[in-house]
Amino acid sequence: MLYQKKNQLTSWLYDYSGSSCLPDSLLMSHSFSLAALDSVLSAFRSICGEDSVSLGEAVREQHGKDESVHRCCPPDVVLFPHCVEEVSALAKVCHNHRLPIIPFGTGTGLEGGVGAVEGGVCFSLRNMDQVLDLHQEDFDVTVEPGVTRKALNAYLRDTGLWFPVDPGADASLCGMAATSASGTNAVRYGTMRENVLNLEVVLADGTIIHTAGKGRRPRKTSAGYNLTNLIVGSEGTLGIITKTTLRLYGIPEAMVSAVCSFPSVQAAVDSTVQILQAGVPIARIEFLDDVMIDACNRFSSLSYPVTPTLFLEFHGSERSLEEQVNTTEDITQSNGGSDFQWARDTETRNRLWKARHDAWYAALALRPGCKAYATDVCVPLSRLPQIIVETKEDLIENRLTGPIAGHVGDGNFHCLMVVDPSDPEEQHRVHLFTERLARRALAMDGTCTGEHGVGLGKRALLREEMGHMAIQVMQSLKDALDPKNLMNPGKILQPREL
Amino acid sequence: MLYQKKNQLTSWLYDYSGSSCLPDSLLMSHSFSLAALDSVLSAFRSICGEDSVSLGEAVREQHGKDESVHRCCPPDVVLFPHCVEEVSALAKVCHNHRLPIIPFGTGTGLEGGVGAVEGGVCFSLRNMDQVLDLHQEDFDVTVEPGVTRKALNAYLRDTGLWFPVDPGADASLCGMAATSASGTNAVRYGTMRENVLNLEVVLADGTIIHTAGKGRRPRKTSAGYNLTNLIVGSEGTLGIITKTTLRLYGIPEAMVSAVCSFPSVQAAVDSTVQILQAGVPIARIEFLDDVMIDACNRFSSLSYPVTPTLFLEFHGSERSLEEQVNTTEDITQSNGGSDFQWARDTETRNRLWKARHDAWYAALALRPGCKAYATDVCVPLSRLPQIIVETKEDLIENRLTGPIAGHVGDGNFHCLMVVDPSDPEEQHRVHLFTERLARRALAMDGTCTGEHGVGLGKRALLREEMGHMAIQVMQSLKDALDPKNLMNPGKILQPREL
Repeated sequence: MLYQKKNQLTSWLYDYSGSSCLPDSLLMSHSFSLAALDSVLSAFRSICGEDSVSLGEAVREQHGKDESVHRCCPPDVVLFPHCVEEVSALAKVCHNHRLPIIPFGTGTGLEGGVGAVEGGVCFSLRNMDQVLDLHQEDFDVTVEPGVTRKALNAYLRDTGLWFPVDPGADASLCGMAATSASGTNAVRYGTMRENVLNLEVVLADGTIIHTAGKGRRPRKTSAGYNLTNLIVGSEGTLGIITKTTLRLYGIPEAMVSAVCSFPSVQAAVDSTVQILQAGVPIARIEFLDDVMIDACNRFSSLSYPVTPTLFLEFHGSERSLEEQVNTTEDITQSNGGSDFQWARDTETRNRLWKARHDAWYAALALRPGCKAYATDVCVPLSRLPQIIVETKEDLIENRLTGPIAGHVGDGNFHCLMVVDPSDPEEQHRVHLFTERLARRALAMDGTCTGEHGVGLGKRALLREEMGHMAIQVMQSLKDALDPKNLMNPGKILQPREL
Repeated sequence: MLYQKKNQLTSWLYDYSGSSCLPDSLLMSHSFSLAALDSVLSAFRSICGEDSVSLGEAVREQHGKDESVHRCCPPDVVLFPHCVEEVSALAKVCHNHRLPIIPFGTGTGLEGGVGAVEGGVCFSLRNMDQVLDLHQEDFDVTVEPGVTRKALNAYLRDTGLWFPVDPGADASLCGMAATSASGTNAVRYGTMRENVLNLEVVLADGTIIHTAGKGRRPRKTSAGYNLTNLIVGSEGTLGIITKTTLRLYGIPEAMVSAVCSFPSVQAAVDSTVQILQAGVPIARIEFLDDVMIDACNRFSSLSYPVTPTLFLEFHGSERSLEEQVNTTEDITQSNGGSDFQWARDTETRNRLWKARHDAWYAALALRPGCKAYATDVCVPLSRLPQIIVETKEDLIENRLTGPIAGHVGDGNFHCLMVVDPSDPEEQHRVHLFTERLARRALAMDGTCTGEHGVGLGKRALLREEMGHMAIQVMQSLKDALDPKNLMNPGKILQPREL
């Protein structure tokens, strides 16, 4: 490549310095002549306007980092295109000059997906922020990359519809498609994989495709290869998503929230399995372990019993809710659950769920001045008790703070690792812990990432999870769509030995 | 290619002769020496045994055709491997000799997917018929290609679990994955796309991959490219599916079936939209038009009003069913629906739904001696009334028999075209009609195939639907995984100009 930096791609856990790779930028690259640089920048400016091409240090730093603890790797230049035609024309310029392209939504990712590890050009898509083509009767809508989850739901407020996939952060919906996001509602409504109907994508060479055909939005299709779900979860390594067509849902007539304490992890998970088996169409079923509950009690002045706890949410008609809650209460009681509380009005529901909503901050408050990193394994339901118990033992043995919160209906849980950024020895212990945790999940038929993606930190684990031949297939797909390896290079797949 | 026949790949509608391409077989191929043939056959025999390699005409004919009206294109040889290792070894032999590979499940496809249009080797997978690794608590199971939908549900009978995807035919579950099948239950349980957790796949060169990593079965994953959904719906053109891991569901506590007549297509579809909008978790919602109802009345001696009719099915607890049925009845009444009948016990439910279940045979009985071909468009819900009304006018104008049955909750419907196989002029009219119908669906943001796949007959329409660039992307994926174009060649993508 004309322009390649060879940054060390180690995880923050080995390389957390707070420093960035800023000085070694496009402007100073030895392999890129000043004349070529001028030509590239003026091409960018002529496409999207002077104001939409930024070389400023602050802007670049802001775009070199997501919400993970991976160190900042700023791009050399940040572009703010206004439409797909501009994205396509800008990508063509990058393609001609072999410049890496890194798509940027809201920067709320958790695996370092936006770091410009080989330098290059960040496509910040916030100026493309229109909600397009809402079809209320068909339960679908198309959005540009600048539209976030909350913005869409605000837009939909008076329609009786909503988009339920909720990863916590107010992420860009196109970014959520790119990382195959999910969150608390997935047990009922599915993840982005099940809720994206079509994508407009700009490929590395500037080609614009529509993964299900331009403007198409049938509920189901068997028309050729499923390009939509190839792009969903590809983390910007196959193309830039410039439009996403989403399934919408009717806002439920009513909601009920509930909380219940359990004598053991096993009892909480057994209840979950039985609730699902009973066909209760539960909307959220979240597990917090005793350490997490204790942290929440302290942080929010609550008084939950310090034991494994389930936070539940039910959606439906008034009558069906009654039955859902009754069935669930029976099941939890038969598993030794106690202190079953439930609430219907919004205010009480919010109070009941406050502990769950504040979990991240409650964890951070355990050790002021520390940073947090969320693990993200997912295993078959029946393996949850064992992996959680073993993981808690591991945390204690290794003197680590990692309260657990989990989307237990999917078998997906997070240890919120609270780590002192100035203590390399502790970071090393966390690093070894997270590897053990991931391998524990793999040994139980699970995955090293349920919803955060691979990004930078899980590329080696992905190889273990998938096996050599499946990784080769992924690499061949990458080569087919992006033969010059320009799209978000260094993510998901490890750079090949040169 | 060493071995290429250049059959005309025209649809049956232009080429319905009942004749096959049998005479022009491997045995007679000019480009394949007798010595090479001997070597290939003895390699096959040494891998899977003498009895599992068939050159018999009857066996080859049986494997050259599915349930569509595409003409029979028998393979040159049919193999009956017993395990994935044999499939892999056999594929390597084919790969070395550049022989086309055509996977065969139960032959219940509807778009000519199993025809050996370039000759080659059929892999009939019926000997691999084990249900493996049932995990009741995790709601998942792994099956080999010889396991059909009904066989799996019989196996599950005492577990309280079932697999709900139901395309009508008792198809192989791996074949259903290959064609992205769905059917009547998709509105509630999704299609194969949403219900396959992992696949074991043998690629064209014999490589064995597991699309989500070997033995893995987490409910959700963000681990790299979604290979599972690249293979689902690839119709055997990317690899041979040798195992499928499926999501299972709890058998509902109770079921209610219902039937309701409507004054117009619009009223039936409006009811459907409102039922979905009201959040009724309806399991099946099937539309039959007046012509179809009339045919059913005659075929099964029933007396339904000859008007657009909805057949509904509700799954849930006793109490929730009551509410679902009440809400639905209210909605249908407000749209002018009448004769709302419902039933809870199995026998009455079966009687109520008999018309829907017998639709195919009732359509055929309209014109004894004729053959049937099912169209398969899918459009956004709101477009259904218009497309159905226009299509019915088109049928009448062109003197064609095509009663309509539709999975109306998904916007997917079929015209069951009943055609005289000895009348080329009528076939021509049907051909033009089906093209107009598909283009009508495309003009309404829909697809030319909701669930039957592309196979042979819809390759040109797929190009119109996807656009040139997306087809190029599909072709590049095909080239990446199957560079010699050996896997089920001639399906989905049109042969390139040489």
